[in-house]
Formats: sequence, structure tokens, C-alpha cells
Amino acid sequence: MTAFSKIALIGLGLIGSSLGHAIKRAALTATVSGHARSGETRKAALEIGFVDEVHDAPADACIDADLVMICTPLGAYQAVMGEIAPALRPGALVSDVGSVKTTALRDLKAHLPDGVQLIGGHPIAGTEESGPRAGFAELFDDRWCVLTPEGNADPETVDKLGAFWRGLGAQVEIMTPEHHDLVLAITSHVPHLIAYNIVGTAADLEHVTQSEVIKFSAGGFRDFTRIAASDPTMWRDVFLANKEAVLEMLARFNEDLTALQRAIRWDDGDALFNLFARTREIRRGIIEAGQDMPGPDFGRSQAHKKSDT
Amino acid sequence: MTAFSKIALIGLGLIGSSLGHAIKRAALTATVSGHARSGETRKAALEIGFVDEVHDAPADACIDADLVMICTPLGAYQAVMGEIAPALRPGALVSDVGSVKTTALRDLKAHLPDGVQLIGGHPIAGTEESGPRAGFAELFDDRWCVLTPEGNADPETVDKLGAFWRGLGAQVEIMTPEHHDLVLAITSHVPHLIAYNIVGTAADLEHVTQSEVIKFSAGGFRDFTRIAASDPTMWRDVFLANKEAVLEMLARFNEDLTALQRAIRWDDGDALFNLFARTREIRRGIIEAGQDMPGPDFGRSQAHKKSDT
Repeated sequence: MTAFSKIALIGLGLIGSSLGHAIKRAALTATVSGHARSGETRKAALEIGFVDEVHDAPADACIDADLVMICTPLGAYQAVMGEIAPALRPGALVSDVGSVKTTALRDLKAHLPDGVQLIGGHPIAGTEESGPRAGFAELFDDRWCVLTPEGNADPETVDKLGAFWRGLGAQVEIMTPEHHDLVLAITSHVPHLIAYNIVGTAADLEHVTQSEVIKFSAGGFRDFTRIAASDPTMWRDVFLANKEAVLEMLARFNEDLTALQRAIRWDDGDALFNLFARTREIRRGIIEAGQDMPGPDFGRSQAHKKSDT
Repeated sequence: MTAFSKIALIGLGLIGSSLGHAIKRAALTATVSGHARSGETRKAALEIGFVDEVHDAPADACIDADLVMICTPLGAYQAVMGEIAPALRPGALVSDVGSVKTTALRDLKAHLPDGVQLIGGHPIAGTEESGPRAGFAELFDDRWCVLTPEGNADPETVDKLGAFWRGLGAQVEIMTPEHHDLVLAITSHVPHLIAYNIVGTAADLEHVTQSEVIKFSAGGFRDFTRIAASDPTMWRDVFLANKEAVLEMLARFNEDLTALQRAIRWDDGDALFNLFARTREIRRGIIEAGQDMPGPDFGRSQAHKKSDT
């Protein structure tokens, strides 16, 4: 059961397709219509069956929908909203799944018709894969979905949207768009940026070959390449959309890294040890909060073999 | 079968204990003696059974050993070598598993008796756990072990040591100590440093609480905390021992990060997209080389559920 009778998914990549699967798994009674720009993606979506219908034009997918979820990269928000605005029915709710909220809401509001509600959302879940075949129903289980209603949002609609996400397995948290963007800058955006960066640095060395970098990646580097395998379009848009918060967090990261660099240069082992011991606590907190698995992962397949015996 | 009849493990943490397990699994005929500074660790090693005997003094563990593996943090090498030197028999081989090779070999050579051979080694394998209970026999399977023989090394002994590591499941590569330290600076040491660094930065923010950092860590941050949960003593010693190479690679990382920062500030989406698309190739190479698993890992338990159904 859901308070929504027709849900339109605009964008059918990893998150859009996972939403479709999760809605089906929850046996919500809603009809799910979908739109993707690529005909191949629309075809795949119907084949896999996580939507009931697909439409070539995003506006057609929104006709009679009482919930429209924008699941495109952030850079497409303004254009998509311009296209669907004429088809939105009064009282409908537009929400999204984008990783940045302040600029996303600004872009969506530019074409928002009167009488249509808007509440930003962001499920903090994903994998390094993308496209309509990457989605699965369990993606949101036990993950947090942040909703960022603005001052004029109707409390009942916020509750309805929260209940929808809980029905898909997620936990729900309310934040201002500004605070969301600051939190995500440090927990997601800057980590991705430095992962992309070090993989680029490693690829460009003259004295160490690319095949050496690949061969000897099990010492830590491979974990960065996993993060740096995420969707390039999505991430380009995230950094452009959350520029201020990312630059602020990056400045702090750089200050701290300069201090570490100096500790190495001057053989200050105590400064290094103190930081390295302190960071273990945060790891413990993440495991206690159920946001990661406790088992050692660096052994990968080895660790699995171990647990099988 | 092995060419060694008695193997001494000096240090019984993650790598020392995994060596013991892997030697037992390979059914090598050698006696395995062990030493650890802590009585608790020695007791655990005997209980678990990955050594045949333990000794309070490292020298006692080395009596009659034809292979002595130093498995302590790098900072202890010189003192340990000073202690075991009198007990080493002529013709014995001393090797190690340390993550830095130039300074490690310098420290070991300071007390190396005449007639005792020395060949540096480094299995590029590990987990974020430490201690005698963290080890398992499969840790080295399909991972690379780098040997760094110097000019005066006996080729037959190098072959013997290579065969020993292959018997434990590893692949073997020969490099100079200097090149090893450069390769590992970028594939392991700098990645660990920036992981430790960002976890520290996140812990020190005023506008984002530690509990928010933990709660919303699934967006990328949690992967860094895993790396930053590695053993503080071992890693302090790595950065002090590989200072020059780490500072060089860090300088390149910083240059590249400054360029990315500038691209964000000036809305240069193309520069961002080009890097983000390029880094995917390296990831593909790592998977093709068998150095990581291909499946999406960000979904963690979700992805496992999916593969079970």
C-alpha cells in the first residue's frame, strides 16, 4: 500500500531502476511509469520489468502521476523540469534522488508550476555500476534517505514521502538543503574527488608503469579505483553543483594533508601515530551504526574462503 | 617439501601468523619457530597452532633456522637484527615482509653477520586487521610477493625464496629495492595516507557532527575508514621509512588535486569528465589482472542478497 497511485521515474539508471525494483518488492499498488533518454535503456527497463510502462517523452510519463521522481544526473534537472512542467497535475509531488540539494532545488523550482509540490530527497546508497541493469531492490535497505523540505513544504506530504522511502527499506532523516550539501561534501564528494585524483596521478607516472600500478594494486590502491569507477557524468555534475561546500571541505583536507606531509618530512612519528590511532574509532562507529560490514575486506575472496571453512 | 628445514618467524601479527598458516597448509616439512614480544601473542600463536614452538627471545627462535623471516614493524628491524645476529648460523637466509625495502635492508645489514644471506621481500597482501588471530592461510593466494635481491645475492638462494613464496600461493616478482619503494608509494602508501587524512579531517569538523559523518558514510567515506583502520604502528613506520618516495608521490598527487580544484572553481566540466572517464580503464585493468573482484561492492550485503536470489 502506498499513498501514491502512479509514480513516474524520470531517469532509469542505477537509482531509477533500483527504485522500480524496490517499489515492486514492497508490493506498492502504484503504477510505475518510466522515461529514459536512450531507447535502449527504455527497452531494457520494460524487459527487466521494474516499470509498468515507458515513454519516449518525459512529460508523457508524468501524466496523472502523483509522485514524480527525478533520477537523472543533476545537470539535466532544469531541462527535464521544463519539459515535464506542462504535464504535472495540481497536487502532484516532485522529488528527486540527486547527491546535491541546494542547486538541485533551485534548478527544479525554475519551472515548477503553481500547485505542484517539491521536496528534495537523496538516498545515500549506490554501487560503482550504472545503467538500468545495475539496479536491485535491496539497494536502499538500512541506508539513509535524506529529505530536504523547505519552509513552505506541507508536513503531511513530507510524512507521505518519508513513509514511501521507509517502505522501500530506507531510514529517513530530515535536513536543510544547505546542511545536506555540507555533510555530503565530506562523506561522499571529497572522497570521490581524491579517489579519482589519485588514480589519475598513478596513471601519469613516468617511472612506474601502468601495468605495475595494476599488478601491485592490492596494497590499498584498488579500493580507490573502485570508487573512481563510478559514473563520470553523474560525478561531474555533483562537483559543479556542490562547488562551494566541496571547495571548503577540500581546503580543510589540504591543510590537514600539509600537516601530515610536514610530519613525514620532519620524522614526527608521534603525530603520525596519533592520527592513525584516532581514525580507528570512526571505523568502529560506522560498523556499530550498521553502515558497513565488520569483516576484513582486504583479503577479499581469501576472507570468503576462510569463512566458508 | 621445501628447501628450508627450520623457519623462524620473528613477529606474529597478521603477516607472521598468515605465513605460519600458509606454511602448514602447504605441508612444508619445515619446523616453524616463532617469537613475538608480547607473551599473550606467543600464547595465542601456540594455541592456534600456526607455529610449532615459541620463544621469549628472538635469538632463541633463530637457532638452527635456515630461513628467518622478519615480520615486525619496520621501526624494530635494527634492534631485532642486533638481537638475533649472534644466533644466526652461517648460510642461513634472512628475509622480511616489510612494506619498504631500501631503508629496511639498510637497517638489517647494520648487524648482518658474515656468511648470512639477506634478501628483502614484500607480499602485497593484507587486511585492515592485525594481531596473531587475524592471519589465515589464503592471504597470499594470487597476490604478488616482490623480492628485492641486491647485486651480491646468490641466484640460487633467490630462486629458493621465490619457490617458497610460490608454495604459499603467491606470484613472485623481482625488483630493485628503490623501484619497489616508488611503486608501493603510489599503490599503497599515499592511498593509506590520504585515507587516514580524510578520516581525520571529517572527525574535526565543527558544522558536521561525528555522528553525521558515521551515519551518512555509505556515500564513499566508509571505504576510506576501512583503509584508515589499519595498524597505526606499522603505518607510522612505513611513512618514516619511505619518506622520499612518499613525499615525491604526494607532491604529484597535490599538483593534480590543485588542478581538479581549479576545474571545479571555474566550472570546467570537461576537465572533470575527462579524468573521471579515464580512471575507469585502470579499474578494468585491475579486475582483468585478478587483483580485485568485479562485482559491485558498494551495495555490500545488498549485493550479496541479490546474488543469492
